[in-house]
Amino acid sequence: MEVCLAWGNCPQVLKHIVFVRFNDGITDEQIEKLIKDYANVAGVIEPVKGFGWGKNYPVQQLNHDYQYGFELSFESEDAIKEYLQSPALAEFHDKFLPACASRMVMDYYLF
Amino acid sequence: MEVCLAWGNCPQVLKHIVFVRFNDGITDEQIEKLIKDYANVAGVIEPVKGFGWGKNYPVQQLNHDYQYGFELSFESEDAIKEYLQSPALAEFHDKFLPACASRMVMDYYLF
Repeated sequence: MEVCLAWGNCPQVLKHIVFVRFNDGITDEQIEKLIKDYANVAGVIEPVKGFGWGKNYPVQQLNHDYQYGFELSFESEDAIKEYLQSPALAEFHDKFLPACASRMVMDYYLF
Repeated sequence: MEVCLAWGNCPQVLKHIVFVRFNDGITDEQIEKLIKDYANVAGVIEPVKGFGWGKNYPVQQLNHDYQYGFELSFESEDAIKEYLQSPALAEFHDKFLPACASRMVMDYYLF
């Protein structure tokens, strides 16, 4: 496996990682709809260069109750700011955020 | 941008995401050494198919005090279990874990 150890000289992508715990009582169908909506909104906002998601798999018990992960990719801070200020994201968040019992976000340039 | 919406029919990778807050007082040099050691141990353990890391960039303030993210990729649950049971990882953890004030781990098949 190749590992990038040339600090500062690697191709960079700005990852936007969102971990979510949905409200108790939400159905699988409601979760699937929210994930599809998330993917769709990521697909229509131009600065989003990648979208993926997954459901936590209980290998260890270190997930601090978060259940789902979402990975979005951007090319720059300006791109992520444009995404965060997008009306399409605001419209999605109007449905998504009230369904979340907890949410955390990490943003980092991936080396 | 392409978005995978064909549930269950996408190429799958098992992501192992580790978020860390290091102890207060740790130096940048100590952190850089730990990251290099992490990359090296990921590089020598065969089931690890990808390794990346990044330092949280303060776009929002939703990182719950975590500072660094590490992304490892595997092909299966068996592969990740082999990694978690590896003596090389245990040796690395002997140095890494005491340097962590907090740590969380999410594992998910990435769609």
